[in-house]
Amino acid sequence: MGQVIPFEGPRKPPESLKPLLDLVTEDMSAINRIILDKAISDVELIPELAHHLIDSGGKRLRPMLTIAASKLCNYRGSGHIRVASAVEFMHTATLLHDDVVDDSDLRRGKQTARIIWGNQASVLVGDFLLGQAFLMLVEVGSIPVLKIMSNAAAVIAEGEVMQLAAAKNMTTTEDDYLAIINAKTAALFLAATEVGGAIAERPADEQAALKSYGRNLGLAFQLVDDALDYSGDSAHLGKAIGDDFREGKITLPVILSFRRGSESERSFWTRTIVDGDVKDGDLEHAIALMKKHKAVDATLERAHSYGAVARDALAIFHDCEEKTAMQDVIAFCVQRTH
Amino acid sequence: MGQVIPFEGPRKPPESLKPLLDLVTEDMSAINRIILDKAISDVELIPELAHHLIDSGGKRLRPMLTIAASKLCNYRGSGHIRVASAVEFMHTATLLHDDVVDDSDLRRGKQTARIIWGNQASVLVGDFLLGQAFLMLVEVGSIPVLKIMSNAAAVIAEGEVMQLAAAKNMTTTEDDYLAIINAKTAALFLAATEVGGAIAERPADEQAALKSYGRNLGLAFQLVDDALDYSGDSAHLGKAIGDDFREGKITLPVILSFRRGSESERSFWTRTIVDGDVKDGDLEHAIALMKKHKAVDATLERAHSYGAVARDALAIFHDCEEKTAMQDVIAFCVQRTH
Repeated sequence: MGQVIPFEGPRKPPESLKPLLDLVTEDMSAINRIILDKAISDVELIPELAHHLIDSGGKRLRPMLTIAASKLCNYRGSGHIRVASAVEFMHTATLLHDDVVDDSDLRRGKQTARIIWGNQASVLVGDFLLGQAFLMLVEVGSIPVLKIMSNAAAVIAEGEVMQLAAAKNMTTTEDDYLAIINAKTAALFLAATEVGGAIAERPADEQAALKSYGRNLGLAFQLVDDALDYSGDSAHLGKAIGDDFREGKITLPVILSFRRGSESERSFWTRTIVDGDVKDGDLEHAIALMKKHKAVDATLERAHSYGAVARDALAIFHDCEEKTAMQDVIAFCVQRTH
Repeated sequence: MGQVIPFEGPRKPPESLKPLLDLVTEDMSAINRIILDKAISDVELIPELAHHLIDSGGKRLRPMLTIAASKLCNYRGSGHIRVASAVEFMHTATLLHDDVVDDSDLRRGKQTARIIWGNQASVLVGDFLLGQAFLMLVEVGSIPVLKIMSNAAAVIAEGEVMQLAAAKNMTTTEDDYLAIINAKTAALFLAATEVGGAIAERPADEQAALKSYGRNLGLAFQLVDDALDYSGDSAHLGKAIGDDFREGKITLPVILSFRRGSESERSFWTRTIVDGDVKDGDLEHAIALMKKHKAVDATLERAHSYGAVARDALAIFHDCEEKTAMQDVIAFCVQRTH
């Protein structure tokens, strides 16, 4: 429970991701070509900035899930390539805007685009990539897929606004937090897998199963992300430990430590998170309080639990390598160290 | 030429806009209802911020053009209402992002959303409205309409990035400037009118005519906008005169004054626009130089010329009240004082 095994190196994929990688290798090459092609513009700044993020070694987990879900649904066309590329573009666009909203300096171990090119360019190139994402979806021409993706775009933004409103607010409950990560993270995982069933025009029960798988996988992914921000390995993580702490972001480890803590501990959380008065040694103290109250462990336990729901969601599909690969992704998301 | 007649009050529509207003009154009520409905969210900040801009007395010129173009094409369905609402949402989303990118304090005589709620919320609510725009378009379900609108979204962002790259750069030519306003402004006018033909499934020549009308009307609109920034009436304009000057924005009045000016005048433009070293009295001097070189007049002449192209684009349509209203909009755009 909550045990994380470090990989050999930051680039070597873990065993649990290998079945998925094998399954999607060919399609991912096509996706990478499309992504490069659609980031082109006569306005030099656009490909320059877009490539900074595109080439930064992200896992492309979301488009891989789209490919896997399409294959699980026996989709025989080629539209899934463009849909998966659009999923990645939408993800990239939200990362660009997130880094502006969060004032982030580092992403995947590199300076963020906003540090190099400024907030203005990051906002606008994010808008451009979102426009390109919809253009790709229009080329595929499936209204159900377009509906899923435009809904995701609206819900993700809604989740980010919710997070903004909850920042520095210690009255945020675990339920509030769940609503936020449901919208800001799980909505795109959900869309990424649901479109696989939609493009293959599968029956409603299979589409609902893929939706449930994606949503719960996304929740598990974000819970682990939030746990890693207080327990991960900075070199592997590609971002600084304690970013959430310094930003006054209310994540589950903080919510649980606050609620399980003493009066004086609550004063500590109020001073650091709410008032933003962070001194040397405060992050270490925060981590110590989380250990004392097993707040990170509990966050990882929640992640396991959502992972189990995701696994059960796939149960209605017959056994095949796609199903196995998608089950293994759950293990990857729950056990990852970065 | 270049003569602008002030209206009686900021709210009273000019004569030239009246035929359009009469034509679209009923549909605009439906659009206003949809706009209110789609700005709703459980996240309080979203409707609050969205309404600030939605209720701020914008003319809703773009959705009115969509309705007029649909009627000109004898469209008989109800989809044009949602499409026009999506056009307005896309416009609102770009305004929210523009104000962040331009550091603007004032829009339509009110404080900008970013001043009241911050840049972060403005970026995210813009994203939300764009997502809602696509959801509305998906509800209508026309792939050609979706294609036009997603293309517009990407091109507008591209234009904004171009403008960002050209800021404070005195080597910008009139052609560069035209490419920028083509993308950042004319692209949405073009989309707003082209969708009217697309939703009515009109022949290619009519759709092309509407596209040309919208593009040239948009160019005229932006040229007048840029002229007004140095010659308008601040109270009617709803924004401060000289905003572009202070931001170092290279618009046509500046390009022409610089190119037509003496060496010492060019030094003035370099100091103020490029170096951003603006002293008391510099704006007045800039306006005097523009008068001397007839730079604002020439900008308005260009606007008239694009207006004439827009008018000719409509020639293939038989005479009807829709055509007359759309012609009168050209006069409105070219002669407006705010």
